[in-house]
Amino acid sequence: MRDLPLIGITMGDPAGIGPELCLRMVASPVLGKVCRLRIYGNKGVLARVEEALGVPNLACADVWDDPALDADAVVPGRVQAICGAAAERCVARAVEDVSKGDLAAIVTAPLHKAALHAAGVSYPGHTEMLAAYTGAREICMMMASEALHVCLVTTHVSVADVPGLVTRARVRQVIGLAHAAMVRQGVKVPRITVCGLNPHAGEDGAFGQEEQRTIVPAVQEARSSGLDVQGPLPADTAFIPSVREATDVYVAMYHDQGLIPFKMLAFETGVNVTLGLPIIRTSPDHGTAFDIAWRGVASDRSMLAAVQLAARWARG
Amino acid sequence: MRDLPLIGITMGDPAGIGPELCLRMVASPVLGKVCRLRIYGNKGVLARVEEALGVPNLACADVWDDPALDADAVVPGRVQAICGAAAERCVARAVEDVSKGDLAAIVTAPLHKAALHAAGVSYPGHTEMLAAYTGAREICMMMASEALHVCLVTTHVSVADVPGLVTRARVRQVIGLAHAAMVRQGVKVPRITVCGLNPHAGEDGAFGQEEQRTIVPAVQEARSSGLDVQGPLPADTAFIPSVREATDVYVAMYHDQGLIPFKMLAFETGVNVTLGLPIIRTSPDHGTAFDIAWRGVASDRSMLAAVQLAARWARG
Repeated sequence: MRDLPLIGITMGDPAGIGPELCLRMVASPVLGKVCRLRIYGNKGVLARVEEALGVPNLACADVWDDPALDADAVVPGRVQAICGAAAERCVARAVEDVSKGDLAAIVTAPLHKAALHAAGVSYPGHTEMLAAYTGAREICMMMASEALHVCLVTTHVSVADVPGLVTRARVRQVIGLAHAAMVRQGVKVPRITVCGLNPHAGEDGAFGQEEQRTIVPAVQEARSSGLDVQGPLPADTAFIPSVREATDVYVAMYHDQGLIPFKMLAFETGVNVTLGLPIIRTSPDHGTAFDIAWRGVASDRSMLAAVQLAARWARG
Repeated sequence: MRDLPLIGITMGDPAGIGPELCLRMVASPVLGKVCRLRIYGNKGVLARVEEALGVPNLACADVWDDPALDADAVVPGRVQAICGAAAERCVARAVEDVSKGDLAAIVTAPLHKAALHAAGVSYPGHTEMLAAYTGAREICMMMASEALHVCLVTTHVSVADVPGLVTRARVRQVIGLAHAAMVRQGVKVPRITVCGLNPHAGEDGAFGQEEQRTIVPAVQEARSSGLDVQGPLPADTAFIPSVREATDVYVAMYHDQGLIPFKMLAFETGVNVTLGLPIIRTSPDHGTAFDIAWRGVASDRSMLAAVQLAARWARG
């Protein structure tokens, strides 16, 4: 038991489904076998959620208790500045502890962008927050599930901004992060499939030059380094079953190119992993779900998968 | 038998798999019940392909015989100017006949872009050719299968060019074409799901303004006209099973947004339909497959589905 890695789970926005997911995690017999958990949250909020749900989990939980949040003022399902501020404090403290080595990994329950904004927090979400706290620069988002692993070259930017961000260096970097992540997942020689940006992967330049100018050179560079990379493949056929079988991890050029197939195959069970950080961080693949907060009806499948993946990586 | 619609099938590039698919169509007992077929091709090429395949279908076929192609000079699997020129002549003649009312519909086997180019044909493919021949301006590509129907606002353009082409008028137009197509497919009140362009459908403008400026107004306009339209939905969750069940046809903003999910669900069985033409035109969802031409190993599932759909629409 003492040898099991200690994982910090941050409560996320107190008015969302984060607190109840945290309570369900610490009560999970599946997780009890692979890790120890510490909630970064607020005891008052957790107690109120327990009462609302009628579950008695808190007694056994290890909680870092955010001292500044007035738990009684939290209204479930509402955007509140006090909630955005509390959520940020929990992440900040968990990152501090994992950076010191007190935690083996962190799993973050969802934040609410508008609540962060109302609290005057300048980061739009976890990824930017974690990059700033840890000083990491070369990061990328990976979505992981049994069916599919996808790493994104660009993430939360408009389609108009995508082509300019698909540089040779960035594509090469994400290929490297994808490779390292899959080695960590236990794949000795990960087979990496890189998608083109344009329809038909540009059709020899007829529908865009990015493939020839940036993606092909990045793939060649990665191959020269000994990585097993194919592509750029036309994205519309890259995710058909025969290609999936020959692929351990995909590198997609933009958000929906990777997440359309991912969510078709792994809706509600996917895990979001930030690659390139000096710490292990995973999160569930959903938002705060304000509409069903504190009701006990939210699915915990994605959060459970997120903790399991963090525990696996933490054990090495 | 005489009441069955007469459908023209163009041979496509003679050096590709088009000729053998045409021969298989005229021999299909399934099609014999729903339509009559006339091949627009070249008898010499069809005879050579029959001999290569060892099938005796030609005797029973109705063939418009392109007089200008030297059949003996055709080398299967090779880009040739004579092939590009012959392929264009077949399409031109079939369009002429369908426009006169001699045919009820046309189904086009695949062209090869480089062969067209070598022949000095300026059209890159069927769609542009058909639009020019018929004078149609407001057309769009629909991919059809039992699993999914998707109409595309933009098709063969680079991702960089997509945002500028997603105009309110064009989105509204494609919604209308999608509605009309599904009515023709037998759906009384088609449920139309429109995808956003940007990740999270722009997240209220944080990742792009196109949703607010063009897509939302187009959807509202279509709704005001009485159409059953939802969206713009974030594309990454638009294709999950629960949304698919509530959707008869999707409107996607760009090629891979629609074709990634389509090919995941209907690889090799999809049909490409050009909407907005004054004639009925379908085609299989694959290319000339030069690597396996004249060998009899090409799948005819997509071509068969294309003829079936054309016959259904032709019967009204």
